[in-house]
Amino acid sequence: MEQLEGRQSILSALRARQRRFQIILVSHQAHAEKLTDVLELVAELRIPIKTVDGAELNAMAHGRTHGGIVALCSAKPRLNAEDLPELLSETPLLLLLEGIDDARNLGFTLRTAAAMGCDAVMVKKHLWDFDSADVARSSSGAYERLPLVQIEKPQSIGALQRKGLRLIGCLAGAKRTIYEADLTGGIILAIGGEKRGLSAAVREMCDMAVRIPTPAAESSLALSHAAAIVLSEAMRQRANIKQKPPH
Amino acid sequence: MEQLEGRQSILSALRARQRRFQIILVSHQAHAEKLTDVLELVAELRIPIKTVDGAELNAMAHGRTHGGIVALCSAKPRLNAEDLPELLSETPLLLLLEGIDDARNLGFTLRTAAAMGCDAVMVKKHLWDFDSADVARSSSGAYERLPLVQIEKPQSIGALQRKGLRLIGCLAGAKRTIYEADLTGGIILAIGGEKRGLSAAVREMCDMAVRIPTPAAESSLALSHAAAIVLSEAMRQRANIKQKPPH
Repeated sequence: MEQLEGRQSILSALRARQRRFQIILVSHQAHAEKLTDVLELVAELRIPIKTVDGAELNAMAHGRTHGGIVALCSAKPRLNAEDLPELLSETPLLLLLEGIDDARNLGFTLRTAAAMGCDAVMVKKHLWDFDSADVARSSSGAYERLPLVQIEKPQSIGALQRKGLRLIGCLAGAKRTIYEADLTGGIILAIGGEKRGLSAAVREMCDMAVRIPTPAAESSLALSHAAAIVLSEAMRQRANIKQKPPH
Repeated sequence: MEQLEGRQSILSALRARQRRFQIILVSHQAHAEKLTDVLELVAELRIPIKTVDGAELNAMAHGRTHGGIVALCSAKPRLNAEDLPELLSETPLLLLLEGIDDARNLGFTLRTAAAMGCDAVMVKKHLWDFDSADVARSSSGAYERLPLVQIEKPQSIGALQRKGLRLIGCLAGAKRTIYEADLTGGIILAIGGEKRGLSAAVREMCDMAVRIPTPAAESSLALSHAAAIVLSEAMRQRANIKQKPPH
């Protein structure tokens, strides 16, 4: 059993139809007009609703942004490498994350990946140690919509490469910037954690390495922000958005 | 008195020379070799060091990422609109944030802004309600290096515009994308919070509105990630980085 909190997470989960819902708890103090869309869908799906006191909801919620609504439901089905082929679009854009150490950062990264049109996000299975409610909450619904695939072996990446996808690793010392690289076609963007970067196993498999240029010395980017910058450039190239030439 | 936690924050603060340090507390259990650079600088600046038990440090720390080192020091001097002129480079890149609701998100945004070469970040004074230690910790040292200016009135922005800076607002419905807009020259990038976006007062002052194109419907970006994407495109245009034409 899992607990979802807040209008956005619950609405996305209801729409994605991947979970079974036991009950929806709504606070007496909630602003009913802000929950109209979610409550209509709950009624349509014949899910029980219980009205409870705001203090009760606060006590059971993990975060403070539930806005008066909490859902109890089954876990989102876990996906693994075998599920990948059927998740891929014609020209896949995949994100591979290594060394992500925080549920909130993972949630934010999923949110950006969903906005930029990623097919799926891959995380190594042995590094999966997150509370799904924390991931879901910071993802603002993207956790429900975006396939999150747990990879067990690097061979799963190799299988995607044999299908024609290029593995592009973000590495601080790479010669080529993300702006010089071709990020169109079927690609897997690999981004590592701040402490260790990408693992040697993934680095060795990469077809190309790229870096985000940062003018300031002594500076670095957090993983989720590096991901946002690389994904937006990939999206721009793929969506054929013309760019103002540099000054 | 403020408390800084972790090697990166303390090293940045020592280098920035803006605070007075009372004492540096180092855990018995800390890995001395990881603290060599900061401890050398502490010795050079003749700041007292006290070795304490790890449990004592854990008890006084706000976060869990102090890595065995905590500093007690004076607050970073507050900057206001009057300080702005002397902070500006020849071609200023400023960031104006509205509706930021979380110390950690502010810290992450400062980190990206510092990496992308911002001159300063502006926040409205009446919205300033953060624990500096929380901001500093997530900024990974950028809080110390990057001027953070508290603005009291919109007139402070107007004064910058009269000096030739263009105010560019990020608005979801804008016609022009960040890729089509000219982000070179002296500019102020204004980004609003997720709930309300930019205030009417700031929107009315904008010289141009831009948006980040997102291919996925139903999607949105968190403030700090929107800031990362806009700042990286501004940096690209300003640094004269050639870009691969879209496919």
